[in-house]
Amino acid sequence: MFHGVVPPLCTPLTADGEVDTASLERLTAFQLDAGVHGLFVGGSTGEVAQLTDTARDTALRTVVATAAGQVPVLAGAIDTGTLRVLEHARRAQALGADAVVVTAPFYVGVGEAEVRAHYERLHAALELPVVAYDIPSNVHWKLPPALLGELAQAKVIAGVKDSSGDLESFQRVLDAAAGSGAGCLTGSETLADLALARGADGIVPGLGNVDPHGYVRLYEAARAGDFTAARAEQRRLTELFTIIEVADGSRVGRISAALGAFKTALAARGVIASPGTVPPLLPLTAAESREVAARLEAAGLGRVP
Amino acid sequence: MFHGVVPPLCTPLTADGEVDTASLERLTAFQLDAGVHGLFVGGSTGEVAQLTDTARDTALRTVVATAAGQVPVLAGAIDTGTLRVLEHARRAQALGADAVVVTAPFYVGVGEAEVRAHYERLHAALELPVVAYDIPSNVHWKLPPALLGELAQAKVIAGVKDSSGDLESFQRVLDAAAGSGAGCLTGSETLADLALARGADGIVPGLGNVDPHGYVRLYEAARAGDFTAARAEQRRLTELFTIIEVADGSRVGRISAALGAFKTALAARGVIASPGTVPPLLPLTAAESREVAARLEAAGLGRVP
Amino acid sequence: MFHGVVPPLCTPLTADGEVDTASLERLTAFQLDAGVHGLFVGGSTGEVAQLTDTARDTALRTVVATAAGQVPVLAGAIDTGTLRVLEHARRAQALGADAVVVTAPFYVGVGEAEVRAHYERLHAALELPVVAYDIPSNVHWKLPPALLGELAQAKVIAGVKDSSGDLESFQRVLDAAAGSGAGCLTGSETLADLALARGADGIVPGLGNVDPHGYVRLYEAARAGDFTAARAEQRRLTELFTIIEVADGSRVGRISAALGAFKTALAARGVIASPGTVPPLLPLTAAESREVAARLEAAGLGRVP
Amino acid sequence: MFHGVVPPLCTPLTADGEVDTASLERLTAFQLDAGVHGLFVGGSTGEVAQLTDTARDTALRTVVATAAGQVPVLAGAIDTGTLRVLEHARRAQALGADAVVVTAPFYVGVGEAEVRAHYERLHAALELPVVAYDIPSNVHWKLPPALLGELAQAKVIAGVKDSSGDLESFQRVLDAAAGSGAGCLTGSETLADLALARGADGIVPGLGNVDPHGYVRLYEAARAGDFTAARAEQRRLTELFTIIEVADGSRVGRISAALGAFKTALAARGVIASPGTVPPLLPLTAAESREVAARLEAAGLGRVP
Repeated sequence: MFHGVVPPLCTPLTADGEVDTASLERLTAFQLDAGVHGLFVGGSTGEVAQLTDTARDTALRTVVATAAGQVPVLAGAIDTGTLRVLEHARRAQALGADAVVVTAPFYVGVGEAEVRAHYERLHAALELPVVAYDIPSNVHWKLPPALLGELAQAKVIAGVKDSSGDLESFQRVLDAAAGSGAGCLTGSETLADLALARGADGIVPGLGNVDPHGYVRLYEAARAGDFTAARAEQRRLTELFTIIEVADGSRVGRISAALGAFKTALAARGVIASPGTVPPLLPLTAAESREVAARLEAAGLGRVP
Repeated sequence: MFHGVVPPLCTPLTADGEVDTASLERLTAFQLDAGVHGLFVGGSTGEVAQLTDTARDTALRTVVATAAGQVPVLAGAIDTGTLRVLEHARRAQALGADAVVVTAPFYVGVGEAEVRAHYERLHAALELPVVAYDIPSNVHWKLPPALLGELAQAKVIAGVKDSSGDLESFQRVLDAAAGSGAGCLTGSETLADLALARGADGIVPGLGNVDPHGYVRLYEAARAGDFTAARAEQRRLTELFTIIEVADGSRVGRISAALGAFKTALAARGVIASPGTVPPLLPLTAAESREVAARLEAAGLGRVP
Repeated sequence: MFHGVVPPLCTPLTADGEVDTASLERLTAFQLDAGVHGLFVGGSTGEVAQLTDTARDTALRTVVATAAGQVPVLAGAIDTGTLRVLEHARRAQALGADAVVVTAPFYVGVGEAEVRAHYERLHAALELPVVAYDIPSNVHWKLPPALLGELAQAKVIAGVKDSSGDLESFQRVLDAAAGSGAGCLTGSETLADLALARGADGIVPGLGNVDPHGYVRLYEAARAGDFTAARAEQRRLTELFTIIEVADGSRVGRISAALGAFKTALAARGVIASPGTVPPLLPLTAAESREVAARLEAAGLGRVP
Repeated sequence: MFHGVVPPLCTPLTADGEVDTASLERLTAFQLDAGVHGLFVGGSTGEVAQLTDTARDTALRTVVATAAGQVPVLAGAIDTGTLRVLEHARRAQALGADAVVVTAPFYVGVGEAEVRAHYERLHAALELPVVAYDIPSNVHWKLPPALLGELAQAKVIAGVKDSSGDLESFQRVLDAAAGSGAGCLTGSETLADLALARGADGIVPGLGNVDPHGYVRLYEAARAGDFTAARAEQRRLTELFTIIEVADGSRVGRISAALGAFKTALAARGVIASPGTVPPLLPLTAAESREVAARLEAAGLGRVP
């Protein structure tokens, strides 16, 4: 189930801060038209950490309805502790998600035995598959490749999303999970061709919101063994990815710089109505937005018909 | 409002994992009898990160009812983003809390302007006062003393809880907030006398669950200017605090080691019925529990009548 | 031997970058006149990491000659590995130092057993006493209090210089080393009164270069048990210490900001001829230097007669 | 000059801790026979941080003499400050090195302008080319790709050795240095094929000490565009690289675990006489050494004739 291009969808907002379901439907359709293989709702790029539960649910419901079974829908169940994650996961299950994506517990420091217990308890309590999400920059703890391999072999987890940026570690995950059937996805926008060369099953690129066709071409090239073509596409996308450096880092944090750029680009391409972000995240300035538009144009990405 | 000894209460559990309200009532009464000046519900020590919203509310409701207005009740409104915090804070307000304790946003990286907006928005939307909670070990971002001073002077925040362990930085907070009326509390168990000597208004010691009388004596001594007596009490409490080192750190994380020890000690003293913790946190082993009991006895802390 | 105020001396330079021995003699005499209890040559503040061995030796020779046995002279033997440290220490011994100050190995990651072996080997090979130097911000490894206590009790080390900024940890060092005879010194400029209240034997404040009289008063007050007076002096010195924040942190690193300010202040007070620093460290700008001078004046520190 | 396989040579020792020049000659000849394209003396793997200057010089002199101009010899000039590095570099120049490899200043925190000044000053003062060495795990500061590109384009540096483990960042270095003529080398043992696929000029694998033939095959395959063969070789070498995990990490640090394994393997293969390490680094235990030997055998690596 977990393979190919699985973009972590942005959550467009109306002027008064509600989930803009019409825009989210258009974004979902845009991705499906481009040939993505799955959709990930409720990741960092989807502002899961800023959205209320109600808004999280609205976003998921909208995407599930629009996808209508064409591709699997993965839902982030991101929270600090097991029972809280379980509540999110059960709501996601009820709303029709095909899998949940779950980090290690965060905010307080837990040990490896506790992280194992976390995934085992979730697996035991849920009917839908669990994807382990390794994102040390947010969780401040790295899921050990050996633990991920063990959980995969035991069918406790059905996949891994690796956003560690560490290909050596990801290689260990691939080796440890080999033969388990677990799908191993990389979250990297810029090393996707290399991760696929090493055996990744798929990619979850935030930038895929803006240019899903590019990532689908990259993935298809890699799958066909044409790593020269994959690398050329990667090079183009890496250049485009500089839109996340446009925002002034002394004003906003990393997340606003990244998803602010994605939303700005999506609005510029006419896919979503507005680039607004959820408080306290600050949107890009007008000047920054013009720069994003210029880089889009340089990448040959115009308005979506 | 924010001064004196304000213990961050543990959340006792029944055998089936529900909030043990009878034990929580006893714990609250035990603290009030010892003369504490406030109660903090829903901190890390209260397993806020592991508890569901329902359980968080049960705990708060129980403590508010037991305190019955004798001392202020502070409620942690701990979550990743502003709107999520706001929902917790509104529930806490409805349940009768006197203030909410709020960290900077976490899980994704935000900038200082966004943290300022976070507190300003909460202040504008709430009727009850907001205490800023600086706990870099959990949030992985340090609230800058200058920002805290600015927010205090602007009456956006009514207090600061400093769990950074960094007295130099806390001194800067005290200086920057001077004259604002904001109460500045330290979360340190072991430097409480020094923090009070430097002008802290109060202390929020997790170990206060186990020995509130000790911290009340320490605080009263310091308030009376008798830092020799305060230090002697501090020395005794620092020795007792080694109960958090009893648990095997290769098995459990820091939080289980600490609150597991507190709960084990409270059960040994007869204040709560059972030392169970919320998944995925693991309780102390039988051998570790015996060691905690031995250290309690060495500190002269027996069963509470 | 290790007690009282032991300033880590700056290394003044001539216009062509040589050690300015005349200025260093004046700085040493200035410190002795103020009543300091020891002198530390070759610390971070002395630009040990930037100076060649020849320059390190010139500085040490100058200070030893000027001190002429009035107070002990401690020499930093700071290098990445044991045998390299040993060479520095032997030269320091030959030049008349009374002790050497040694960090854990750095640059490559070593384990605790290797750090223990490091100190044991140095102790066995040297005649002069070894002071263990805990400065995690530079070494990126923290000397465990229990290890320091063990080495102190075994007489492998004769003292500890704690520049961790962590009073809780320093308290553990004090407790673990109690009765061993090892002198425990804090490197903190701003928590000196508190460290002394907790039992520190002395202080090694970089700011002591600029205002040794202040730190001597602080120390004498604390020694006499008058912590109110110590705190008042500490408050004044903490205000003065803001000179290290004058430099633009986007231009220079922490070390230049700090020692550049100390040297600028010493030049402004007429103690040393010039505020120049060793490459690649950059000196303060003219505007920054004026601001340092203004803060000196606000602190009532004029030219030294 | 900087391309191909450039192993960072181990420094074999005699029983009394001197540089074992006979073993070092054999190691050098072993590498040359395998077809390496350069030799790096005085890196972390060469125990540069532990060796005295005299021993560093002996090692360099030995390798230069044995290489006899067949391949370039790069010498680490690793120290905390510019003038100290300059002294090492001048000695290396006098001893016949073809280039020096230099990190940013370390031990104290410097700013980017100071790091730029560091390399500019070295370039101006030296006749031999300077290779910038990015190893954040040791230096605790990351050389910014943009700065490396700028220095490369200005011919201040003639090469980059990237041991950051971060391929995304290395890609930026490659892009920023493109057209400058600077050689860009990766220090990764396990991502070498991918780094070459992205355009790296060469590799500096510590494991190359043990199996230079493997890395030469990997490099030649990649150079010929046969990344399938390169990956197969990489996979074999990655398996062999697990010898660095054999040592008990609670006993020794990372560096001992790695170079202890390399030296043990070299001794087992008969290339060097003894696996001893420089104090305070601890060698592998007998049991650990047997495990290294077993993994060597599994990799088909026997005694060198």
